[in-house]
Amino acid sequence: MRILYHYPLCPFSRKVRFALSEKKLDFAVEQENFWEKRTEFLQINSLGQVPVMIDMNGSELSDSTAIVEYLDEVYPEKKLIGEDILVKTETRKIMNFFDTKFATEVSLALLNEKVIKRFSGKGGEFPDSKNIRNAKNSMHHYLDYISWLSDRRNWLSGENFSMADITVASHLSVVDYLGDVPWDRHEPAKQWYARVKSRPAFRSFFQDRIAGLIPPSHYSDLDF
Amino acid sequence: MRILYHYPLCPFSRKVRFALSEKKLDFAVEQENFWEKRTEFLQINSLGQVPVMIDMNGSELSDSTAIVEYLDEVYPEKKLIGEDILVKTETRKIMNFFDTKFATEVSLALLNEKVIKRFSGKGGEFPDSKNIRNAKNSMHHYLDYISWLSDRRNWLSGENFSMADITVASHLSVVDYLGDVPWDRHEPAKQWYARVKSRPAFRSFFQDRIAGLIPPSHYSDLDF
Repeated sequence: MRILYHYPLCPFSRKVRFALSEKKLDFAVEQENFWEKRTEFLQINSLGQVPVMIDMNGSELSDSTAIVEYLDEVYPEKKLIGEDILVKTETRKIMNFFDTKFATEVSLALLNEKVIKRFSGKGGEFPDSKNIRNAKNSMHHYLDYISWLSDRRNWLSGENFSMADITVASHLSVVDYLGDVPWDRHEPAKQWYARVKSRPAFRSFFQDRIAGLIPPSHYSDLDF
Repeated sequence: MRILYHYPLCPFSRKVRFALSEKKLDFAVEQENFWEKRTEFLQINSLGQVPVMIDMNGSELSDSTAIVEYLDEVYPEKKLIGEDILVKTETRKIMNFFDTKFATEVSLALLNEKVIKRFSGKGGEFPDSKNIRNAKNSMHHYLDYISWLSDRRNWLSGENFSMADITVASHLSVVDYLGDVPWDRHEPAKQWYARVKSRPAFRSFFQDRIAGLIPPSHYSDLDF
């Protein structure tokens, strides 16, 4: 059986879960609280990051982008990065932009302040309200960009649903769990997100729960 | 003519310059001081980031990783990501790790403090010695990782020179220009870097100069 070591609210883990489900590839999940730096887990991936995927043949793969590139090459039936080279380039640009900039400024920043600090048990690590405010302020710029793209294209990188949609939605879904997406002020982005949310492969995110941290009611509402 | 909009000390720009030279693809460079947000440049790339490459056929490409994936597909004569799928996955993992973690913690942090703040003309923006100290402290961990990899393999991602070597050396070369790499304490990493430095495609970095900011003498010394 294919195994995915993940953390439910890690946007990079969600990106791979979402991609596997879109491709209809079976997998079992193992939750890995990556901040614990378990010895057995570090032996699989010395960098200690999630997600890590063990494919059917035993190949150990890490880094979410390297994994999705692998999936598109080894299981090409439903290509998620794209077919045409210029579409692929556009998909990768959007994917990397959110995996680096949005992650640093928004999704990982909020995850760290609101979740990791709480569970990692480091004494005295309380959420920093300045960091939370900065992350929330940064978000508008990205939601404007999503609105701009979705006003011009069927999906974010072109005519077809792609890893650009999967990546952006994975990051946003984590922020949405935390109740921090200002959907009201970004209607086109919201409409695009509602379309992504209605895909069967997205559904497993609705079941994710972190103890003591309840998502807002619209989180798993298809007509939010 | 192929055109590369770049900034000489931007590690992502260097990564694409290095890859183009390894592939022996001709290109002209145009320096873009990206923080100025020139209107004409934003029309090419609304995200305002360097590098941007205009290929011979007029295709406008941005995001350094998307560009190198494009180059390996369109000009496959000398593959830099790899041939075998598991080697490609390893190359991408190392490339993304340095483009995200090392960039955030070290190379972009130091570039921002020591160069961008100086030239961007924002009043009152002086280098923050705490940020500089944190970046320098983080570096050891990455140099240990490079040493660990180069003790086990011919090049960083396997038997052959790849985008892993190009990416890591591009980031380090920027830090080296700033005189901040503690080579003395990381002999295997230093020996690997000396091998990368001796490649003809690396040479153009030796000529890069930023006004008022002189690199240490070992910067362009092959036997440093």
